[in-house]
Amino acid sequence: MTIQIYELCGANTDLLFSPHCWKARMAVAHKGLPWQAVPVPFTGVATVEGGESRRVPVMRDGDTVIEESYAIAQYLEATYPDAPSLFNGKGGEALSIHFINWAQTAIHPEVAKLAMLDIYKSLAPKDQEFFRTGREKMLGCTLEEFDAKHPKNGDSLGKALVSLELTLKNQKFIGGESPLFADYAAFGALQWLRICSGKDYLVKDTAVAAWFDSLLDMYDGMARKGIVAA
Amino acid sequence: MTIQIYELCGANTDLLFSPHCWKARMAVAHKGLPWQAVPVPFTGVATVEGGESRRVPVMRDGDTVIEESYAIAQYLEATYPDAPSLFNGKGGEALSIHFINWAQTAIHPEVAKLAMLDIYKSLAPKDQEFFRTGREKMLGCTLEEFDAKHPKNGDSLGKALVSLELTLKNQKFIGGESPLFADYAAFGALQWLRICSGKDYLVKDTAVAAWFDSLLDMYDGMARKGIVAA
Repeated sequence: MTIQIYELCGANTDLLFSPHCWKARMAVAHKGLPWQAVPVPFTGVATVEGGESRRVPVMRDGDTVIEESYAIAQYLEATYPDAPSLFNGKGGEALSIHFINWAQTAIHPEVAKLAMLDIYKSLAPKDQEFFRTGREKMLGCTLEEFDAKHPKNGDSLGKALVSLELTLKNQKFIGGESPLFADYAAFGALQWLRICSGKDYLVKDTAVAAWFDSLLDMYDGMARKGIVAA
Repeated sequence: MTIQIYELCGANTDLLFSPHCWKARMAVAHKGLPWQAVPVPFTGVATVEGGESRRVPVMRDGDTVIEESYAIAQYLEATYPDAPSLFNGKGGEALSIHFINWAQTAIHPEVAKLAMLDIYKSLAPKDQEFFRTGREKMLGCTLEEFDAKHPKNGDSLGKALVSLELTLKNQKFIGGESPLFADYAAFGALQWLRICSGKDYLVKDTAVAAWFDSLLDMYDGMARKGIVAA
């Protein structure tokens, strides 16, 4: 049966940009399972699958509904043990958690600095209002004030990626010879930036840029085929 | 047979402070193997075990000599597979590499900011000269100038530890229910700071402080028993 993944979308419902949803989608593709994206705007997230305060991604696999990308990866690993592993053992499963937290505290803020207004502009009017209210409360300033503070080049992002660059200089993937869920955790953040900004902020000829490119090509180029903001 | 670990030492040869040597020592203790530290000053490192440009830690196990803490952990894992695992599988072994690179690029610079002069002061005169020449070339300023730039509180260190704090709020160790080599990679950096500064820069009541304390207690309090600079 086809797995359904509820994913955040823009005004164009084919613009699927959420880093967390990309983590889940890559994990499903990694397992070789058929999937279908169900686009959900910001203002539709809370009631996905009858939930009262869902966060996307939400995945439905037959009668099972799972929320949150790491939980989805754990479910896929337990349910489809014969498909390629997302963790390569219990140590990989445990260490993925720090990796996810690292990506979220090191890469995500850099994406916000570069693309906060791009994300905003990609949304439908109702979702723009929702996004602006929530983010401005969190930031303590307007989206435009936040945006104006941060130069639009890849310098600060490059600094945040230094440990990733060091690692990928000596191995193809974070997971070694082939990607694991950790790879998708970092990939999701950079794919979010790529889709919302429509720009390539990764420094050419870096190991990170080559690794990102190779993940865009995987699974029949699934991640490269996704619509990117103009 | 007792494993020998060549470890960097101060003017007091019982002051064993190197983060990388602590990673190796904790890994040996994790495997439950008998070990003996062989103190080596900075100016003695290059010729340890007849090598021409060794870096410590160097470990001798019978006829086998291994250099570099991750290589030591891999050797221990392959040679003593029945003792507790340092990686819990191939995924954990692969993901440890990014974790090590993260610790080295996120935590180590914070230790340097807090304790550069403390490290210097703990060395014998000949090693002080060696250390000063090398570090000042790298820093582009004197040790004293570097030291004066950085406030001596835990604020900047605390920011560097945010992904670790988030992780340890929900699990006892980076490795899950028990520590893995990744735990020792972060521990080594903070133990280096603790030993050289003689101060406790970790914010009390944080998950990181509790985790660090529990590692100091492990293996019969081995890491707590080590001499700390006055």
